[in-house]
Amino acid sequence: MPELRKDPVTGRWVIIAVERAKRPDDFKFEAPQKKMSMCPFCGGNEHTTPPEITALRNGDSARDKAGWRVRVVPNKFPALMVEGELEKRGEGMYDVINGIGAHEVIIETPQHELSITALSDENVREVLWVYKDRLVDLRKDKRLVYGLLFKNVGERAGASLEHTHSQLIVTPIVPLRVKTEMNRCAEYYDFRGRCLFCDMIKQEISNGVRVVMEEKNFVAFEPFAARFPFETWILPKRHISHYEATEDWLLGELGYVIKTTLKKIETAISHPPYNYLVHTSPFNEQAVDYYHWHFEIIPRITRVAGFEWGTGFYINAVPPESAAQYLREIRL
Amino acid sequence: MPELRKDPVTGRWVIIAVERAKRPDDFKFEAPQKKMSMCPFCGGNEHTTPPEITALRNGDSARDKAGWRVRVVPNKFPALMVEGELEKRGEGMYDVINGIGAHEVIIETPQHELSITALSDENVREVLWVYKDRLVDLRKDKRLVYGLLFKNVGERAGASLEHTHSQLIVTPIVPLRVKTEMNRCAEYYDFRGRCLFCDMIKQEISNGVRVVMEEKNFVAFEPFAARFPFETWILPKRHISHYEATEDWLLGELGYVIKTTLKKIETAISHPPYNYLVHTSPFNEQAVDYYHWHFEIIPRITRVAGFEWGTGFYINAVPPESAAQYLREIRL
Repeated sequence: MPELRKDPVTGRWVIIAVERAKRPDDFKFEAPQKKMSMCPFCGGNEHTTPPEITALRNGDSARDKAGWRVRVVPNKFPALMVEGELEKRGEGMYDVINGIGAHEVIIETPQHELSITALSDENVREVLWVYKDRLVDLRKDKRLVYGLLFKNVGERAGASLEHTHSQLIVTPIVPLRVKTEMNRCAEYYDFRGRCLFCDMIKQEISNGVRVVMEEKNFVAFEPFAARFPFETWILPKRHISHYEATEDWLLGELGYVIKTTLKKIETAISHPPYNYLVHTSPFNEQAVDYYHWHFEIIPRITRVAGFEWGTGFYINAVPPESAAQYLREIRL
Repeated sequence: MPELRKDPVTGRWVIIAVERAKRPDDFKFEAPQKKMSMCPFCGGNEHTTPPEITALRNGDSARDKAGWRVRVVPNKFPALMVEGELEKRGEGMYDVINGIGAHEVIIETPQHELSITALSDENVREVLWVYKDRLVDLRKDKRLVYGLLFKNVGERAGASLEHTHSQLIVTPIVPLRVKTEMNRCAEYYDFRGRCLFCDMIKQEISNGVRVVMEEKNFVAFEPFAARFPFETWILPKRHISHYEATEDWLLGELGYVIKTTLKKIETAISHPPYNYLVHTSPFNEQAVDYYHWHFEIIPRITRVAGFEWGTGFYINAVPPESAAQYLREIRL
């Protein structure tokens, strides 16, 4: 008998469809090959991107030249633009805002690597530090209220360049999905006086069946109502509402947990396309007791079809307990 | 400058990214070829499906034999199952329901056609009648509250069989997306005393720039905050809250509008993978003044990436006004 599970954070339901059960071997992907001959993200090609916003650089290397370790540039085809006044208007019954915001690319290494798992631990730590740094900088802009950090890997997950990179889109409104999560978490807090994510972390660690890995300060687990096979969340065990409020000394361990978890996923299903994204509190909220930042890793190995589009309801043929066990047992 | 548009029905925002603008020619798909040698949906192969639930049949042809025009069978790998008691339970902080429901396949023709647009007008009308008939039957089951009719065309849109067919999944809870739409429409009705969709239809018809086609009783337009290039909605002009309450005499015209719109989309972007789905009111609601059933057609020609997953915010590089003009001008 299949099972309907409700995600307590969003309220969405997922069908864990054991009758359609699949094993990790059912998802086969070709290990990605380096294809690109001229890559605008490679060291030495800095002139092919828009001028850099910031970079972690060696010694006295110059802006927009080689010698960087992590580099941030505006997206060449930005979804939103940073110049201009924020204007809100009606169009009959509809609401419109002009496209003010930011759209940045975080190039994680000057080497032509296809995966963040190929980077050194220190390199990954620096990428995570740059994430913080960009949020801290952009939240000063009072027109902007939300920053979404994300990563697209593989063509099927929406990546157009193979060189490992992340993106940051900063918007003038709080996106609906985030608002829904925050509202539900606030209600939970009102009702119980505790953070929903803190409760979830406690239950997951004590129960253990969905845990992928646990370190001193971070835990990775498959969510109870996972939408997708091998969907994995990574959270700080201690309550922190904003990603950018995470202390620097935690970033090394966070990097280790992200890299190890992704390596396990890459091993389990041979380099799947995936997205990851950071859900964090809006800029216009101070530290809050009811929301807890977290990473969501979403392997894009199954197709989203009409039913999912129509309902926001997902069908997942791999129970998260099986996926977690599989990932736990992988020795790297 | 890009533009942020809010969909009044769901509250979600869409970035209409003119800087990334694409023309229909940018989306090229291979015209689908008939590949399948043994197709379980073809006339003569009735024994290869689970026993039929119902069928429109010629003369005295027998159940589970050839001689049908439209045939409904249970999905061989059902996401939900119709037998059993509905049981709701907690698992610590989580909520679970056992997977009671229905998952049916509507085989639209015994001929091995790849698109509903290849069927005769009368055949399409009968398919739409069967949609009604199944909802009317399933809503008698008090365990079930929502029926989602949908269609997946092409592998990228989640189809696993190429023979033209639709599906119906009936769930024991109202899906989140539908609930959100209904709640927002109820608020709009409280505030203005009118149906949001009725207002939208009036504004779209009088404005005209996003209209694809208009007939006496139905209209097809690109929604103001279209998530995807060539996303198209089809609605009855007169207020009807439940699909199954649509009078039979309207189904011929509805079929004509669906078939013509899909033909235009197939011509514009050469047989794209797509989903369509019907949003209708839950079984446990009587006729309501605030919700209006509608078809949503979603061509799957762009990739959903990390930003969309993270925010529920979409980036669409084809303004709906351009898509509508393009579709309007296609002569079939």
